[in-house]
Amino acid sequence: MRSGRISFGYSARMALGCGDISLALLTDLYQFTMAYGYWRSGRHREIAEFELFFRDPPFEGGFSLYCGLQEVLLYLRDFRLSDEEIAYLESALPSTVDKAFYRYLKTVDASEVTVKSIAEGSVVFAREPLMQVRGPLLVVQLLETTLLCLVNFASLVATNAARMRSAAGPDKMLLEMGLRRAQGPNGGISASKYSYIGGFDCTSNVLAGKLYDIPVAGTVGHSYVTSFSSLEEVHPKVLEPAGGKDPALDFLVLVEAWLQQVCQLLGVSPEHVNRGELAAFVSYGIAFPLNFLVLVDTYCVKRSGVPNFCAVALALHQLGYRAVGVRLDSGNLARQSVEIRSTFRACAKHFNVPAFEKLSIAISNNVSERSLLQLNQEDNEIDVIGVGTNLVTCPLQPSLGCVYKLVQVNGCPRMKLSEDQDKMTIPGSKTVYRLYDCHGHPFLDLMALEDEPPPSVGREMELHVLGRWEETRKVTPGATEVLHRVYFKDGQICQHLPTISDVKAHAQHSLNMLPSEHRKLHNPKPFKVALSEKLYHLLNNLRRTSHLQ
Amino acid sequence: MRSGRISFGYSARMALGCGDISLALLTDLYQFTMAYGYWRSGRHREIAEFELFFRDPPFEGGFSLYCGLQEVLLYLRDFRLSDEEIAYLESALPSTVDKAFYRYLKTVDASEVTVKSIAEGSVVFAREPLMQVRGPLLVVQLLETTLLCLVNFASLVATNAARMRSAAGPDKMLLEMGLRRAQGPNGGISASKYSYIGGFDCTSNVLAGKLYDIPVAGTVGHSYVTSFSSLEEVHPKVLEPAGGKDPALDFLVLVEAWLQQVCQLLGVSPEHVNRGELAAFVSYGIAFPLNFLVLVDTYCVKRSGVPNFCAVALALHQLGYRAVGVRLDSGNLARQSVEIRSTFRACAKHFNVPAFEKLSIAISNNVSERSLLQLNQEDNEIDVIGVGTNLVTCPLQPSLGCVYKLVQVNGCPRMKLSEDQDKMTIPGSKTVYRLYDCHGHPFLDLMALEDEPPPSVGREMELHVLGRWEETRKVTPGATEVLHRVYFKDGQICQHLPTISDVKAHAQHSLNMLPSEHRKLHNPKPFKVALSEKLYHLLNNLRRTSHLQ
Repeated sequence: MRSGRISFGYSARMALGCGDISLALLTDLYQFTMAYGYWRSGRHREIAEFELFFRDPPFEGGFSLYCGLQEVLLYLRDFRLSDEEIAYLESALPSTVDKAFYRYLKTVDASEVTVKSIAEGSVVFAREPLMQVRGPLLVVQLLETTLLCLVNFASLVATNAARMRSAAGPDKMLLEMGLRRAQGPNGGISASKYSYIGGFDCTSNVLAGKLYDIPVAGTVGHSYVTSFSSLEEVHPKVLEPAGGKDPALDFLVLVEAWLQQVCQLLGVSPEHVNRGELAAFVSYGIAFPLNFLVLVDTYCVKRSGVPNFCAVALALHQLGYRAVGVRLDSGNLARQSVEIRSTFRACAKHFNVPAFEKLSIAISNNVSERSLLQLNQEDNEIDVIGVGTNLVTCPLQPSLGCVYKLVQVNGCPRMKLSEDQDKMTIPGSKTVYRLYDCHGHPFLDLMALEDEPPPSVGREMELHVLGRWEETRKVTPGATEVLHRVYFKDGQICQHLPTISDVKAHAQHSLNMLPSEHRKLHNPKPFKVALSEKLYHLLNNLRRTSHLQ
Repeated sequence: MRSGRISFGYSARMALGCGDISLALLTDLYQFTMAYGYWRSGRHREIAEFELFFRDPPFEGGFSLYCGLQEVLLYLRDFRLSDEEIAYLESALPSTVDKAFYRYLKTVDASEVTVKSIAEGSVVFAREPLMQVRGPLLVVQLLETTLLCLVNFASLVATNAARMRSAAGPDKMLLEMGLRRAQGPNGGISASKYSYIGGFDCTSNVLAGKLYDIPVAGTVGHSYVTSFSSLEEVHPKVLEPAGGKDPALDFLVLVEAWLQQVCQLLGVSPEHVNRGELAAFVSYGIAFPLNFLVLVDTYCVKRSGVPNFCAVALALHQLGYRAVGVRLDSGNLARQSVEIRSTFRACAKHFNVPAFEKLSIAISNNVSERSLLQLNQEDNEIDVIGVGTNLVTCPLQPSLGCVYKLVQVNGCPRMKLSEDQDKMTIPGSKTVYRLYDCHGHPFLDLMALEDEPPPSVGREMELHVLGRWEETRKVTPGATEVLHRVYFKDGQICQHLPTISDVKAHAQHSLNMLPSEHRKLHNPKPFKVALSEKLYHLLNNLRRTSHLQ
């Protein structure tokens, strides 16, 4: 079931799931009080640079996938304050604020802002800038909260999805189905989009499928099954054989005959089979003869769900159709999948229907990274896994904690010291290089000052690895790559924006390049992020001077 | 800082933070495959009833606040599928689907749906229906995911906020500031709205303030402070005394003089004070002479932040203004607040400025329910607490887990059995009564079948408490209340919709009525939810019949 063809970047606010609401006020009030402070001091047009980064890798893992860039770019392109928005601000800010400030706000947009960014979907690491935002102090300050809001959850849920993909292995089909547990409509839409980029195959969320061209999937829930109580409720009872040339047959009669045979084979009493469930399956088989996949745990899986499924599936095969499979939503999923596969094999053999061996077994029910890992340790015959709550709410770490910090004003590097060492920032406008070994695998990301010469391939260099700054370390890159490109300048998006499939492919490639020791879900080897000698000295000097002051 | 006057229910999609995007497709695909199954069997117009409820109280607590009703009502009022949406569905569903189904979908709306609900903001408990949705089977099925999406997070975050309010005590001012950590724009807006209902005083989120008439607040972040490096950057340097009658004075000169005195009093060297921080404070004081509250932990709190703040605040007082206070964002917040309060008292006394004793001390930095409880155990002088991540992402339980289950079709009760006992549903269309003791406190919620006579005040009755169903228990209500009212009928919202302040007030009243033993944050006494004798027998009969089949 594929969605229609609507491009990834449909329109700024549409992409944000926010329609005609401007996002210019989707920010913290203190951005406006600070903006006024800058304006009042005549500093609003000073050129400042902020960096957006996270301090620790999420989920105690070794990497994150960086997402949200495209939505940030669309937001920037449209960024300006309407008269109505400014009137609201006037009502919310103190009456001592100079009215000329509001007149100035009417002229503000992102046309003088330059954004450099790592490519969306890339593997990224703690403390390196994902985005470098340069422009008039007042404007780049105003952007902070919205940029964080757009990057934080997007990157978090994509990373969560990538970890689940890794835990599930490459062969399982993974379905995102968390809409009902997400933080409202937009939370759910974002979760669908970025889970897909992170490695899921499809979503249950129809609107996300439509907006972003993500494959959508889904069959029946328990309510469908419980809504039927007897075969009397099934109309029509007939089904045409596949091909459409032969006259329709009484499908109920076929199913009843198959049910007797199935019950005999499985040693189940036909009286224990729930007739409402059978009616639900029959009606669904008639409705979707080529897509017959039903939930078999509404009553008893063994004594009712599976026999009923097999009877309808065999009747469909008799008419030239091919059933898809079953879904389980409770109990021990691995064990049941093995038992069901064995039943399918018995049917395949006994009734000479080889396709029955390959029927799909789908599961859901509070699946988590941990249960996926456990599943991989156990025998199981599961083909499709639906994940909801634990994917979209990221309970192991519900926020990525990206921050947006000032690193330079008027060409002068700035840093924030703090009582918490960990909250200290790394000053200055930087170029970030990814260094590769001679086999083409990345082994270190290097932050250097913008005006430093780039590292030379094959030449040994000295640097300081974060976490052990004091030591000088020597490395020799086999290849280097500048991580950031200019994505936004002069009010325009200045790179071709990739489709969502391109971003997904880039994410998978970027992950696969990373040596597996950094990709381990637990106790990964930390990927090194380092400072150049020059940046290290700048940081130390600024730290000393601030303390001395 | 109060927001403008825009009513709670501005417009359906606006209230959902989704502008002109229709939410009709914001659902799981399987709702449409089930809808087709019903339609194909001719059952789509059978009258069905679903109940929306949660199975366990969130956060291992004793209660939940029910929220999201108003957004559900606005969604229902607008519910219909456009031609474009139906065309997308056609592309996403199997090609075997009868085209007449799509023509039928064009006629579908919620005009035949009746929704009974508990009042928004009410205290509610596990397994009782929050909402009872009755109407044509196909339509009420289609509504499932969206209703869950709108109620789940709203109720969860309101409950989280109520718990934090309880942990913080009634006197602290609580500010929600989680936008940057929420699940995108709409997650952030929802968090602001429902935190306010749950007991917070204000939000940092400007758009939420504007949309929902929530007070907004905020002052400065670290970037403002680090953006200044010297007093040279402060323009203008002058400030008019309060009242506006006297000529402006050189504010810098005043501040410098006060700084010498403050440093002497506090035993701090004026050389250790960071001059960039002083410049930031001076500029902010000139910009907001009546709202001077600054972040004092960018460099060293004791040797720089507090002395700088006191110098500017004293200069403001000298000119007839009154400073507001300080904010701390790192380190041991309780201990620092006590030290700062002692400094303020020393200044108050030494400089004869009594208002200094009452200066506000605000804190932030990863505040959680647990840290609020700890804070209450420690000496502290904190007045205002900002909470972000742990409020909006609800890490203790990131999803409420509401479900939407079929309880009746065509007047016949339905139930879902399951391998998991806990996933069993309670069949039949019900009336829910809250029973009060003779002191007017609620002590039990009773689910009875719709056609049963109501419980009589002062007359003993028998019932079965959930969790211990087998036992018959006797209670005598001092008063009773029917919990549900009809909110939506004939396509119309049929109750006056309360303002957000009304909902907040109702939530606080509803919480206060609840005996404190049920409100305890840890190991609360479970509030009893019970079945009437008749409902209990129906459930047992259906369970037996399903198993026997």
